[in-house]
Formats: sequence, structure tokens, C-alpha cells
Amino acid sequence: MKKLLKTTILLGILVIAIGLIFLTSCTNKDIKNNNPQWAIVIHGGAGTILKKNLTSETEKLYNQKLNEALEAGATVLENGGTSLDAVTAAITTMEDSPLFNAGKGAVFTAEGKNEMDASIMDGSNINAGAVAGVQTIKNPILAAREVMENSKHVMLQGEGADIFAKEHGLEIEDSSYFFTQRRWESFKKVNKNKFGTVGAVALDIHGNLAAGTSTGGMTNKMKGRVGDSPIIGAGTYADNESCAVSATGHGEYFIRNVVAYDIAALMKYSGVSLKEASNYVIMKKLKDQNAEGGIIALDKAGNFVMTFNTKGMYRGYKNSNGLGEVLIYGDRK
Amino acid sequence: MKKLLKTTILLGILVIAIGLIFLTSCTNKDIKNNNPQWAIVIHGGAGTILKKNLTSETEKLYNQKLNEALEAGATVLENGGTSLDAVTAAITTMEDSPLFNAGKGAVFTAEGKNEMDASIMDGSNINAGAVAGVQTIKNPILAAREVMENSKHVMLQGEGADIFAKEHGLEIEDSSYFFTQRRWESFKKVNKNKFGTVGAVALDIHGNLAAGTSTGGMTNKMKGRVGDSPIIGAGTYADNESCAVSATGHGEYFIRNVVAYDIAALMKYSGVSLKEASNYVIMKKLKDQNAEGGIIALDKAGNFVMTFNTKGMYRGYKNSNGLGEVLIYGDRK
Repeated sequence: MKKLLKTTILLGILVIAIGLIFLTSCTNKDIKNNNPQWAIVIHGGAGTILKKNLTSETEKLYNQKLNEALEAGATVLENGGTSLDAVTAAITTMEDSPLFNAGKGAVFTAEGKNEMDASIMDGSNINAGAVAGVQTIKNPILAAREVMENSKHVMLQGEGADIFAKEHGLEIEDSSYFFTQRRWESFKKVNKNKFGTVGAVALDIHGNLAAGTSTGGMTNKMKGRVGDSPIIGAGTYADNESCAVSATGHGEYFIRNVVAYDIAALMKYSGVSLKEASNYVIMKKLKDQNAEGGIIALDKAGNFVMTFNTKGMYRGYKNSNGLGEVLIYGDRK
Repeated sequence: MKKLLKTTILLGILVIAIGLIFLTSCTNKDIKNNNPQWAIVIHGGAGTILKKNLTSETEKLYNQKLNEALEAGATVLENGGTSLDAVTAAITTMEDSPLFNAGKGAVFTAEGKNEMDASIMDGSNINAGAVAGVQTIKNPILAAREVMENSKHVMLQGEGADIFAKEHGLEIEDSSYFFTQRRWESFKKVNKNKFGTVGAVALDIHGNLAAGTSTGGMTNKMKGRVGDSPIIGAGTYADNESCAVSATGHGEYFIRNVVAYDIAALMKYSGVSLKEASNYVIMKKLKDQNAEGGIIALDKAGNFVMTFNTKGMYRGYKNSNGLGEVLIYGDRK
């Protein structure tokens, strides 16, 4: 009888122990769920984007296209693809749309031509690729990726970049492809709609971060002008150790302030969070210089920010926790 | 009598007070003397520079030209000129010499052409200017400065940059000017002498830092290739709050590691010294990636470093304390 009692007690303890382990694992699972397995954040440019200036039809078009770009990236990530592929998928979707100032729909230089810039960075090995001032490449982000993956260089500019892309089999278009009536009207009016750069950052299930940015640059810019978008450290940066960042705004200030890397450096060297670092750089440092723009960023834990000091920023995010949203105006961050 | 006594005591106190103030100011002056009023550091490229490979004649030529560049900058600073003018004077001296891979003597692309890059940054207001892939500008550093001071942009590439420089009255040369037999032989042999970028950093008596870099890029580089030299944050950075940096080396790695700004960020955010920051970035971070090159840098107190992980770096420094030296090989830092 004593033996039976002992066994019962031992069994009881065992059951309780297993129960506790089970309970703990459930709790861990809950905690894990707070950190998404994958995540993607996109932007389609920051600037004076006000509800009163957009017809409900235009607003709908932007929302649709942002959702489409987000889905293109999210599908890659859901299927176990890489953050690089997700960033590429999201950005090419926006480049192919005339709604944004990148690829089809890029703005015009003072000469009435398109000169596009793009860059991409792989956070797993800090490899990077960039093109500046390209005129014939349908998807500049693919050219940036080609430079990263299939050349010994990081950055190519001008005709050399166009030739490289053609030789590597990328789709080439003549200037009529990039021309859209809306951008042309914008050029003729020399209005202040300087923004419209597109970008994406992603975290994949392998734990790797990536970032990419693509732009037509400033409306009415000087021939040859390069903004922050193709500059690693200014418009784009990714490193698994800190974060992935894509910027949009008044490029000259973003170059001078090395914006994308500054956020990463603050996290690495000051130990602040992604949110604190982004707020300091965009809402304090840049704002004090009257420098307009914003960034999207992701850290390795899947925390994300969409920080901008302008009236609005076309933007959206989606992650494996089921979170997802597309936003335009400044009412919510 | 009482009044006289009072007056005498008051006068005595006054004399002692003035004496103390005088003494303090003298002590301050002594401390200040340890920190030079002005300083300049230059480089003419890092690489496999070994004594056995240089004839004594060649060595003498390099020493002479480095001294000349140093003097050109030092003269500006001695006369109360700005760090920007000193950096410009030192760099144009080296650009005008066929000994270095910048301006006259720039290396050739795979197509047999010159494509030069340069950038400059003003630490007093973090303003910056850069040109990439220019082919006709006698002194690319002057074009970078012109972009900074007389355009609304920070960076211009390709033909647009050449046109801008011409329109702004800078000296233009045809390709025969940049051609030198030595560089041509080097191109034909496709040897490994990839280095030879020039750069300068300076601190002026007004307490302002500046940095500049100019290069012909990699020997046999792909048409359109942009290295770190015209990239603010990678090849050049200056901010009175941290330091002024000019880099030389395997540009692709310098871009990916945002080398110049990384040193500044380490100082600002981790609170380490210029020496510690430079050693970490060049001797640890880059070395771990087998990335060859070096930097010269100055902080606001006039502390300077000339840090490289290669066999040698053409380099020199001079300051108002009477310190000054020109070095080539790796025996001394």
C-alpha cells in the first residue's frame, strides 16, 4: 500500500510537472507570437499628402496599389522566401505603377528626361548594389540587385549602369515607357511634389533583414543629380545586427545626415530601440534642419516603424501575426 | 582713515582677483597649446607600397609632392584661412600631379577612359558636395566644392556633372590631359595597384573641420563604377561635433561599411576616442572582411590618426605646434 501511495504521489508530481512544462511552452509560444516570423513594410513616398487634395478615386488607387505591393512581398515571405526577394517583389510592383515616382512614372529632370536611382542591401552579409542616373532600365531595383549579385562593384552610374543591365538581360525600355501624362504635367508646372520614392524593408523566416529603395528623384532636378536613394547609408541600409531602413524625402539632407545608417548606428552604439533611434533622427535631427521626409524600418525582432515629419507618407505593413494595414495621411503612425 | 583702509583692502582684493584671472588665462593658454590651433592631414592612397618596389628617385618624388600638398594646405591655415580652403589646396596639388590616381594621372576604366570621383564636406554645417564619373574636369575636387556651394544638390554624376562644372567656369581638359604613360602601362598590365586616391582633412583656427577625397577609381574598373570617394559617409565625412575623415582603399567595402561616418558615429554614440574608433573600424571590422585600405582623420581638438591595414599609405601631417612629417611605408603610424 505504501508503495502504491508513493507511486501515485510520484505520478501526480510527474503530471503536474508535465502540465507546468506544457503551460510554460504555451506561454513561450505566446511570447514568440509577439515577434513575428516574417514582416514587411513599404513606402511610396512622403510629402504634403493631404486628404483634401486626393479624390476618393485617387485615394482608392493608391490603397489598392500599396496593398498589391505589400501582398507581393508578403507572399514571398509566407512561402519561406528571402527578405531580398520580398523587397524586390514589393518594389517592382510599385515601379511598374505610374502612381509612384519610380520606374514607370518617374519624374523629369530639368532637361525633360528620366534619370532613375535605386539601391538594395542584404542584411545577412551587408552586401549591397546600387544604380544612379539610369534611363532605360524598366526596373532599376533589379539592376541594383544585379550589380550586387553579379558584379564586383557596389554602385554603377549613368550609361555604364544602363549598359550593364542590358548585357545582363534585364528588361530595357525607351523613354516613352517612363513617360506618363501626370508626371509630365507635374514637370511642366514645376510643382512642389518632389516626393514619391518607393521602398521596402523585410524580415524573413530565416531571420534575415533586407532593404531597398527606388526613385525618379526630384521633379525638375538638374541633369545628373543623385539623391539619397542609391546611396548606401543614406537612403538604404540593412544589417541583421541592427535594422533595415528605406528612406524618402529631401535627398540632399538625407545624404548629409547619413540617415539610414545613423539609425542603425544609434541602435548599435547607443543601445536605443529602433523607435527611439528613428524618432531622434527624423523628428528631431532632420526637423531641426527643416529637412522633410521619412523612413520605414524593421529590426530583427520584427519591430517596425514608419516615421515621417511630413503631412503624409504612402505606407503599409504586414506580418506573420496577422497584422497589416495601408495608410496615407499623418493621422496615424 | 577708515575709508582709506577700506579702499586699500578693496583695491588689494581687486589686484589679487585680476592676478588670478590672468594666471588662469595663462594656464588655459598652456592647455590650448597642447591642442594645435590648426592642423592638416593628407593621404595619397593606401596599398601594397613596399620600399623594395620604389626606387629612391620615385620615393623622393612622392615625398616632395606630399610635402608640397601639405604646405599648400598649411599655408592657408597659418594665414587664418578655412579648413575647406586648406583641404581644397592640398587636394588640387595632388590632383595636378601624375603621381596619384586623381585628376592628372587617374587610372583607366575597362574601356580605356578616365572616370573620376570626388567629394568634400564642411564640418561647420555638414554641407557637402560630390561628383561621380566625371571625364573632363581638371580638378574634380573643385567641382565637388562648386556643387556644394553653388547648386541646390549634393551629388552630380556623369555628363551632368561635367556640364555643370563647365557652365560654372571650372577648367576643362580633354582626355589627353589625364593620360599619363605610367597609368596607361598600369592599365595595360591590369596590375593590382588599385589604390592612389588622394584626400585631406583639416582643422582651422576658427575651430572648423573639413574633409575631401578625389580619385580615378579602380584600375580597369567597369564603366560607370562608383567607389566610396564621392559617397558622403563612406569616403568622406566631416562634422565639428565628431571628426573629419577621408578614406582610401577597396571602395566597395568602404561603401558597405559606411566607413567615414561609422568612425564619427562611434565617437558620438559610444564616446570612444578618434583613435579607438579608427582602429576598430579599419584594423578590426574591415580587416575581418579582408577589406584593404585606410583613413586619415582629425577631431576638433586637433588629434589626428592615419590608420591603414595595408603595407603602406602615402601620408603626411602638419600642425601649428610645429609637428609635421611625411610617410610612405607601414613602419610608423
